[in-house]
Amino acid sequence: MKQNMMYLPIILAILGLIFMYIKMVWVKKQDAGSDKMQSISKSIKEGALAFLAAEYRLLLIFVAIASVALFIISKLVDTTSWMIVPAFIIGAIFSALAGNIGMRIATDANARTAEAAKTSLPEALKVSFGGGTVMGLGVAGLAVLGLSLFFIFFTNQFMGGDGSFYENMTVVLEALAGFSLGAESIALFARVGGGIYTKAADVGADLVGKVEAGIPEDDPRNPATIADNVGDNVGDVAGMGADLFGSYVATVLAAMVLGNYVIRDMSTTTQFTDGFNNMGPILLPLVIAGVGIVASIIGTFLVGIKDNSAKEAEVQKALDTGNWASILLTLAASYFLIDWMLPETMQMSFFGEGIRDVSSINVFWSACIGLAVGALISMVTAYYTSLGKKPVMSIVQNSATGAGTNLIAGLAVGMKSTFLSVILFAAAIYGSYYFAGFYGVALAASAMMATTAMQLAIDAFGPIADNAGGVAEMSELEDHVRERTDILDSVGNTTAAVGKGFAIASAALTALALFAAYVTFTGIDGINIFKADVLAMLFVGGMIPVVFSALAMESVGKAAMEMVHEVRRQFREIPGIMEGTGTPEYAKCVDISTKAALKEMILPGLITIITPILIGLIFGAEPLGGYMAGVCVSGVMWAIFQNNAGGAWDNAKKSFEAGVEINGEMTYKGSDAHKAAVTGDTVGDPFKDTSGPSMNILIKLTCLVGLVIAPLLGNHGATEHATNEIKKEVRVEMKSIDGDMAKATITTSTTKDGKTVTNIQKLEGTAEEIEAKAKEAGEIVSVNVKKEAKTIEVEVEKKE
Amino acid sequence: MKQNMMYLPIILAILGLIFMYIKMVWVKKQDAGSDKMQSISKSIKEGALAFLAAEYRLLLIFVAIASVALFIISKLVDTTSWMIVPAFIIGAIFSALAGNIGMRIATDANARTAEAAKTSLPEALKVSFGGGTVMGLGVAGLAVLGLSLFFIFFTNQFMGGDGSFYENMTVVLEALAGFSLGAESIALFARVGGGIYTKAADVGADLVGKVEAGIPEDDPRNPATIADNVGDNVGDVAGMGADLFGSYVATVLAAMVLGNYVIRDMSTTTQFTDGFNNMGPILLPLVIAGVGIVASIIGTFLVGIKDNSAKEAEVQKALDTGNWASILLTLAASYFLIDWMLPETMQMSFFGEGIRDVSSINVFWSACIGLAVGALISMVTAYYTSLGKKPVMSIVQNSATGAGTNLIAGLAVGMKSTFLSVILFAAAIYGSYYFAGFYGVALAASAMMATTAMQLAIDAFGPIADNAGGVAEMSELEDHVRERTDILDSVGNTTAAVGKGFAIASAALTALALFAAYVTFTGIDGINIFKADVLAMLFVGGMIPVVFSALAMESVGKAAMEMVHEVRRQFREIPGIMEGTGTPEYAKCVDISTKAALKEMILPGLITIITPILIGLIFGAEPLGGYMAGVCVSGVMWAIFQNNAGGAWDNAKKSFEAGVEINGEMTYKGSDAHKAAVTGDTVGDPFKDTSGPSMNILIKLTCLVGLVIAPLLGNHGATEHATNEIKKEVRVEMKSIDGDMAKATITTSTTKDGKTVTNIQKLEGTAEEIEAKAKEAGEIVSVNVKKEAKTIEVEVEKKE
Repeated sequence: MKQNMMYLPIILAILGLIFMYIKMVWVKKQDAGSDKMQSISKSIKEGALAFLAAEYRLLLIFVAIASVALFIISKLVDTTSWMIVPAFIIGAIFSALAGNIGMRIATDANARTAEAAKTSLPEALKVSFGGGTVMGLGVAGLAVLGLSLFFIFFTNQFMGGDGSFYENMTVVLEALAGFSLGAESIALFARVGGGIYTKAADVGADLVGKVEAGIPEDDPRNPATIADNVGDNVGDVAGMGADLFGSYVATVLAAMVLGNYVIRDMSTTTQFTDGFNNMGPILLPLVIAGVGIVASIIGTFLVGIKDNSAKEAEVQKALDTGNWASILLTLAASYFLIDWMLPETMQMSFFGEGIRDVSSINVFWSACIGLAVGALISMVTAYYTSLGKKPVMSIVQNSATGAGTNLIAGLAVGMKSTFLSVILFAAAIYGSYYFAGFYGVALAASAMMATTAMQLAIDAFGPIADNAGGVAEMSELEDHVRERTDILDSVGNTTAAVGKGFAIASAALTALALFAAYVTFTGIDGINIFKADVLAMLFVGGMIPVVFSALAMESVGKAAMEMVHEVRRQFREIPGIMEGTGTPEYAKCVDISTKAALKEMILPGLITIITPILIGLIFGAEPLGGYMAGVCVSGVMWAIFQNNAGGAWDNAKKSFEAGVEINGEMTYKGSDAHKAAVTGDTVGDPFKDTSGPSMNILIKLTCLVGLVIAPLLGNHGATEHATNEIKKEVRVEMKSIDGDMAKATITTSTTKDGKTVTNIQKLEGTAEEIEAKAKEAGEIVSVNVKKEAKTIEVEVEKKE
Repeated sequence: MKQNMMYLPIILAILGLIFMYIKMVWVKKQDAGSDKMQSISKSIKEGALAFLAAEYRLLLIFVAIASVALFIISKLVDTTSWMIVPAFIIGAIFSALAGNIGMRIATDANARTAEAAKTSLPEALKVSFGGGTVMGLGVAGLAVLGLSLFFIFFTNQFMGGDGSFYENMTVVLEALAGFSLGAESIALFARVGGGIYTKAADVGADLVGKVEAGIPEDDPRNPATIADNVGDNVGDVAGMGADLFGSYVATVLAAMVLGNYVIRDMSTTTQFTDGFNNMGPILLPLVIAGVGIVASIIGTFLVGIKDNSAKEAEVQKALDTGNWASILLTLAASYFLIDWMLPETMQMSFFGEGIRDVSSINVFWSACIGLAVGALISMVTAYYTSLGKKPVMSIVQNSATGAGTNLIAGLAVGMKSTFLSVILFAAAIYGSYYFAGFYGVALAASAMMATTAMQLAIDAFGPIADNAGGVAEMSELEDHVRERTDILDSVGNTTAAVGKGFAIASAALTALALFAAYVTFTGIDGINIFKADVLAMLFVGGMIPVVFSALAMESVGKAAMEMVHEVRRQFREIPGIMEGTGTPEYAKCVDISTKAALKEMILPGLITIITPILIGLIFGAEPLGGYMAGVCVSGVMWAIFQNNAGGAWDNAKKSFEAGVEINGEMTYKGSDAHKAAVTGDTVGDPFKDTSGPSMNILIKLTCLVGLVIAPLLGNHGATEHATNEIKKEVRVEMKSIDGDMAKATITTSTTKDGKTVTNIQKLEGTAEEIEAKAKEAGEIVSVNVKKEAKTIEVEVEKKE
């Protein structure tokens, strides 16, 4: 069993994919309704797939260029195999495939949900959540499957070579980083492109349709209405799916990299061994991810309501039950897995403190912190963006004095929401590191991400319900159908906001784990912001998310303008369009959104990928670390600010639908205050659906690019690397002195061609014995040990 | 001459103050116009002084509490004398005094400018710029006078004590930090309180007066009109003055602290000596500041126009001429001063690189970088906020589709403007450090701040002209008077935007210099963000400016609401107010603004001061460094974003006054697009006048508080300090090896009671000679030197 543990995640992933297939067949078997409903659903599906197809063509070019670049890097660096290229390509394909599956099922499920809503609310929930489940399991299943297969393939390929276990495993994991990079690259384009697409269509449809022509949302007379519904799928389904696919893979990868460091730290005197092919700490995150899939499947069975007269609260409760069940199941399983797969006591090197003993239960505590903080940040997000809560009400109240005060209030809500979120996030870093170092941080992220399948099922159900409402409206179904889908849609809005909180928290922790892996990969001493170049790059990094957000927002504006002109043109030129006798040219609007999204995603995409490469090559590894930290700090702030401000504005606007009391008077839709709230929502839309969520990708991808080019940078950056310097560093650390006996650790790092190989020996003995061992290690002439001494460091640098 | 160089700044400062007095008498001698004008001017003055008086009462409490806290700190820490307390108090008083002088003259000058405008535009410029000059010279003169007097007093007090020159000078400079802390504390309250005051009055006056009652700006029937005009003085004159007073003092102080480190680095083999009482590098920044005052006085003579039919461009050119003349004069003087006061070659320790030789001309290059970057950032600010330029025009174009798109465009402009500003700022850090280390960074800041007197004269002239227009309007003077003051006002708006860019750039560089001084004061190795606690605090620091901004914006909202209710009440209850027969109760509105501003400034103020103290005491020196960096990075971003977005919105709105072409049609005031632009301006107002400028104070004060508590934190934070650990660290660095001869530096740092004393020796000799010297230094048993070796480090830690 233990020996073959590495095959378990594959089995679990395939189990997830089988269950996904069964669910998919079930959804497709449901009645898709009348011809009109099927035709609308088909238009949405075709539009969505047309966007994907156009996106894939663009991505093909990107993947081709990036593959060549990666191939060159792999030739320049010893520790990087050329196999990073196929891993990268397959990562990109898997991510695209996951998005494709999700998009197909979501667009299949919308009309079926509307049809089911004719019968009852429980049926409608079943179909829409079924669609979400397919999406969730597709993403999680493909992610774990891809990672596991490549891991096994690479271990067969590279383990047992000339180098140490640690060195060979580094080659394995670096090639595996290609898979993650591929996945995250697709996520960048899916999130940014999808975000631009959905908002361009939404704003365009609303500005001309609702405001100028005075026709309701989702009215079939509006030429942009199909594009609008396509946008929901492109942005919220495919974009969110690719985002979480990327986070999921990157988190597991980072945890595996840091697991390898744990093994290195424990292999000082004798090579670390365990029953799991000596790679327990590396396999653990992969196994937890696999178990999370099963827990998610079990959780989905608990999502269901019986009462046809149920309201939002009951639906929400059903989702919560399933969600918490899968979380708690994963947590319980993690406890036993950690206990089983990790040595009872591990030795980990803590920066600036040397090697410390860490009990395996500590890793479990780190995982608990990850789960707790993920849940708490989601709750904070929900508080700041929910209907009826103080922050949203403050925006509502401020709408009475006009758009200006509404906007100030909304901005302030978004800004204030950073307080608790960041405090929680800082506590997560501090706490999980305290328990188990950066391995603990990575495990915290892994635990949080383990139930990704369930999270996505809940996230994807919202847009499906939203689309179902659109189909019902466009097909002019009876009112109670729309009422039922509206209940689901309303719950979907809350889960969307919470899901965004979860996505930020996971992206931030993932970035942190990648950041830690980066520092260890480059072999630098740390990232000291008291060095002027590092500090300068910290500022540059802090600026990137701000400029990125601006570009994304402007793209929405530009694309929306084009859409407005097209819709106006159709209203003007197509005879009988307003009377319902002429058919709008839906495809033209879909085409405009598609083209605009693809065009506008290029510049932010290039900035994200090229800037870290330039900084790394010009300034070196440590300034690049400063840049990465700057992007993370600023990116997290702007992500929280934009998402929560946008969510709060949205719900402030929605508050007027049921009516709100302002200064003692009930105020409704159509009032001046409501108009002010609509303006706020217009600003909030690109915040929460385009620029805000893009921050997740920006921070993760920045750290991933850093990680992939890390071996190129070596210890002193590319310029010094060019001199072909060989550097050997020997460090002797005394642990404790008791009588004549002492414990010591000797770390030898050799850097050649920018590649650092580190070896750690743990010793116990008299001062003389330690001295003798230390001398063996390298070109040290002698090591002096004094009884009072706590630490002795000897560094020898040699140029050849 | 050289011996008495420390008295030169005093002479120059007094010269500045004498010239200020002459100018003040001249302004007051001008005709203040009709009784009505005098009465209006008097109301404004009384309102402004009433606010100051109320503010002083609050500050008295704050200063009392802070003094006790500082006294306790001074008793706990050896290097801090209790004399930091009087320095703090005097610093606060001088800053308040400078604000008071400025406010008095500004409120005296407004009616006189309006009266002069009856005659001609050149006369009006002369009076308004004369008022500004008084303000500028008052601030600069008092700052240099205070710093110099305390420096001389403290050197007499503490130099020649038991310790080394370096140790005694550290005591001097730490006491002097109290003066800076006092100044910056007042700036906090003046900037934040003033910002809230001015916008509450402005928004309140506009919402009810302009929008609801339909009466023009500055109409005497509006009860909030006096409060509005008071606000201009309170925010733009006193707030900006206190801000720059604080930057000016802090910059010079930081440069002096870093000068002391240069002296330490140069005193390795033999104590550094020069003709300037052995303190040339410390005196230099003080002397440059003094010379800058004289250069500013000369510059003011060049500001003037002859042609009565001049327009904005001519007035702007006159101001530019004066400004550039004083900058170039200061630069030329700096060249000779640097050459004269610094040794031709200095030894400075560069972090991670050891001691490096730095030619004194390098320091001049750093100063040039400071001036160039200051000017360039001001230009970038002007580009993003000026009428007719692309960014403002993009907002104008987007106003056509409503407030929503106007707001998105404005936010995007603000966000994009961070790009160039931050690149320039990063280049300034990189470049000035490259030339002369952190002393270079501090000198860059000092050079930028040297012409503060001139900068402020230009800044303060704007609000005076603005007020003059108000007086003209309220006193119903002839149209050509208002036209002339409008020309001055319009130029004032541009200089205000540019001044804000300058204020941010200077605040950021000042913070950086303080940050460098902090690291050296605490004696920590650097700030390594790869440590989890430091990274966590970097995130917390990044969050503070965001939350601070939100609080400031909300305060404006709350205060403005109170003002709206009061104005509405007066319109309702005072008979004949709209017909001009009833007199509004101006004082009530002034009172509301005053109370609201004072109440609302407390929370942000406390957050700014208490957070770094808590973090330092709980987590230690290095995490506090991470926090400081986080505040700086995020604060700079948010300052640029908010200032430029606000400035751009303001001018987008103003564009409609002359008419703009949108989609081929001329659009004017009163159009829907103009209304959208007004909404944008409402959001931009607190951005650019309250929360944006407050960021400057936040980042400077955070670093200053860190600097003042630095000695408390010692090397490992307060908790370990409590164990009374004595730590000795000896570091031997080999510089070069040539045959049998080597150069080496031995650095010995001893930390006791959280206080670190460092000693550096430079050696040249054979390996044996170096070894012998190194052994003398401390408890090292032996040092091994190998010919191939580049670096040898030996660290011995001993617990006693």
